[in-house]
Amino acid sequence: MTQGQAESYRILHEADLRDYLAGRPKLVAALGGGPDEWSITEVGDGNLNLVFIVKGALGGVAVKQALPYVRLVGESWPLPLSRAHYEYLALTRQAQLAPGLVPTVLHHNDALALTVMELLEPHIIMRKGLIAGTQYSRFVDDITTFMARTLFFTSDLALTAAEKKEGIAAFAGNHALCKITEDLIFTDPYRVAEQNRWTAPYLDATAAGLRDDMELHVAISRLKLKFMASPEALIHGDLHTGSIMVTDSQTQVIDPEFAFYGPMGFDVGAVIANLLMAYFASSGHERSPDERRAFEGWVLETVEQVWTEFARKFLELWRKDAAGDAYPVSLFPGEKGAARLEAERQAYMQRLLGDTVGFAAAKTIRRIFGLAHNIDFELIEDPHKRAVSEARAVRLARAMMVETGAFPAIADVTSAARKLRDWTPELSN
Amino acid sequence: MTQGQAESYRILHEADLRDYLAGRPKLVAALGGGPDEWSITEVGDGNLNLVFIVKGALGGVAVKQALPYVRLVGESWPLPLSRAHYEYLALTRQAQLAPGLVPTVLHHNDALALTVMELLEPHIIMRKGLIAGTQYSRFVDDITTFMARTLFFTSDLALTAAEKKEGIAAFAGNHALCKITEDLIFTDPYRVAEQNRWTAPYLDATAAGLRDDMELHVAISRLKLKFMASPEALIHGDLHTGSIMVTDSQTQVIDPEFAFYGPMGFDVGAVIANLLMAYFASSGHERSPDERRAFEGWVLETVEQVWTEFARKFLELWRKDAAGDAYPVSLFPGEKGAARLEAERQAYMQRLLGDTVGFAAAKTIRRIFGLAHNIDFELIEDPHKRAVSEARAVRLARAMMVETGAFPAIADVTSAARKLRDWTPELSN
Repeated sequence: MTQGQAESYRILHEADLRDYLAGRPKLVAALGGGPDEWSITEVGDGNLNLVFIVKGALGGVAVKQALPYVRLVGESWPLPLSRAHYEYLALTRQAQLAPGLVPTVLHHNDALALTVMELLEPHIIMRKGLIAGTQYSRFVDDITTFMARTLFFTSDLALTAAEKKEGIAAFAGNHALCKITEDLIFTDPYRVAEQNRWTAPYLDATAAGLRDDMELHVAISRLKLKFMASPEALIHGDLHTGSIMVTDSQTQVIDPEFAFYGPMGFDVGAVIANLLMAYFASSGHERSPDERRAFEGWVLETVEQVWTEFARKFLELWRKDAAGDAYPVSLFPGEKGAARLEAERQAYMQRLLGDTVGFAAAKTIRRIFGLAHNIDFELIEDPHKRAVSEARAVRLARAMMVETGAFPAIADVTSAARKLRDWTPELSN
Repeated sequence: MTQGQAESYRILHEADLRDYLAGRPKLVAALGGGPDEWSITEVGDGNLNLVFIVKGALGGVAVKQALPYVRLVGESWPLPLSRAHYEYLALTRQAQLAPGLVPTVLHHNDALALTVMELLEPHIIMRKGLIAGTQYSRFVDDITTFMARTLFFTSDLALTAAEKKEGIAAFAGNHALCKITEDLIFTDPYRVAEQNRWTAPYLDATAAGLRDDMELHVAISRLKLKFMASPEALIHGDLHTGSIMVTDSQTQVIDPEFAFYGPMGFDVGAVIANLLMAYFASSGHERSPDERRAFEGWVLETVEQVWTEFARKFLELWRKDAAGDAYPVSLFPGEKGAARLEAERQAYMQRLLGDTVGFAAAKTIRRIFGLAHNIDFELIEDPHKRAVSEARAVRLARAMMVETGAFPAIADVTSAARKLRDWTPELSN
């Protein structure tokens, strides 16, 4: 499947891409018709890459090519093409572990940093659906299967220590992508940084408060260290609702270019943070008071189920597929041993919930004060209204990060969110 | 310095070794005289390798060659030669970070898994000195400098995340040596395993008790997971008193073939465990009652100072050489920030002490019930007397591992040790 390693990198514009695809019989067959009849459209709305949709008489494909710089910022911010290699590695691993929940890779070219995948149609980016107030009935089951299986089967609970170390080494070179997270999520929002922005002037005092909040800085620094030095499992690394494509009957996780061996709570926390932001943004999208209450109820229920179903599935895998070197069952013989190991499994999940709550908070704050914002909030046109939604999310996030122990169950998170639904923040000006 | 990569591996016996060294002008110059005049003696008393001392008219060298199997067990237990590569990598890194505290490497050959080092003379293995009741006045200062510098400068506090990931990847291949630790320290002593042994019959009930102690099994499993999945720094990985060579004025750390990125507390805990075992063994070596009381007092004082001086030096480095990505100083501005960061540094050291106490306990129990024992205990000829010393050490270790929180300061460890000095254990038969 991997071809053309000897080729050298060049950016493929439409005509080049057509020629390139026309030279791959398998892709020609999938598209159907003559290359001249294919429609090619650049649709990348992410921060980093070129994305083309190519359609032929028989079918379509999505083509993703990495650029040697951050698309959102430009050539002044170079970024290694090797991320396409890691994305491909992660995609193929995820496809083995969570079949049907990631797009099928049809072709990959490391030298061109290019991957051709099945076209997901009529899927939309989940974030857009949430902004429209759509409820997705498959989502909880699919995303918790994805997370439970990809995280469990790449952890010390399922792998030998040797396999685990090989995996860590295989992804160690993806450090430039990790560095983006380290800077933009775990550092910049808490200090003066050129790329920070927020809904000014309303959140000026809140932003200043975060920069002055030393308890928060200790908490974010502990999370940063955990992100850097806790290779618990192969994580997606960017699992927000913009990396998930949905229909009512399907969920597909895309864009794992930030993948590396990191803390599991970072992925679970990303999903939960983005649901919580959808919740707090929701009232900003109302056309009439309370019209989205049912949707908001569904979102909070989904937050709870994401954790409880993830934990249930992860524990189920642990009980039956624990082939790894951690917690050897031979140390927990008989009924007494089994009971003690089960209690330890629960304690393990409790620690993982703590990590999840902390990382969810970090993912929230960066979207309101850092470089990359969410359209959940950005599409609230009235900046005062937007700031109110954002301030509610930040208030919860600050508590989740600094007083993580006050959220021993996921219901403590959702009940705090519910209480903040109509809280009136003090805003600047 | 690295030569002969194209050569293929063969075990160098005396005559081969003489020819090999004779072909290296730098080594010939260091030894002096003609190769025929060199004395070559095999002295390896470790568990894994061949070690030769070669002496010529002008000087001597030590030659270490890895065997493709575990020397202690034989060819039935194969072990990769690549460990010599990792040992060489670690030795050269340690030499940069802690100059003067590791032997100078004169020559290394990866294909032959062979390293030639300066001959340490008149140094002896520290463990032997401790058994003889010798106090080493340089030890605390040297070993704490070694640990503080090698651990700090390979941690996230001193390295960028990219440098750290490169280091982790460079040592990831040393997993076969890690596996020995995972099995022999963190697993086998707590279950029925062919290679286990203990001072029978006296410790039969104690051994059975450990195998039945589910709280202990949870604690050792947590430590095992930390060992496998917490790449905090480049650790020596086998830092017992048999890996330390001493004179009264010099300390040299040798044999880092178990080196990899792991938890710092494993190294600090190894030193402390081996001092505690020297302490508990001491009364077994008395020729008259209480003749070694002064030595024993020195050992416990040394335990305390190893922790306090290590912590002091580590913190000092953190305060002035924090070039790493963790805990960025820019998040802790002004007096308020500095004070909060300093409090967090103390909290970090407190967590590290907890790890140290736990790992020290694990290192103790494996030496009494696992495959590899210590001559501290083994040289106590009377097995009943030996079992008494061992039982005291085990009682402390069990508490340290399961009730780690009951040892918030290193003085809590030494005072517990002091109380157990004359405790009479119940032994089998």
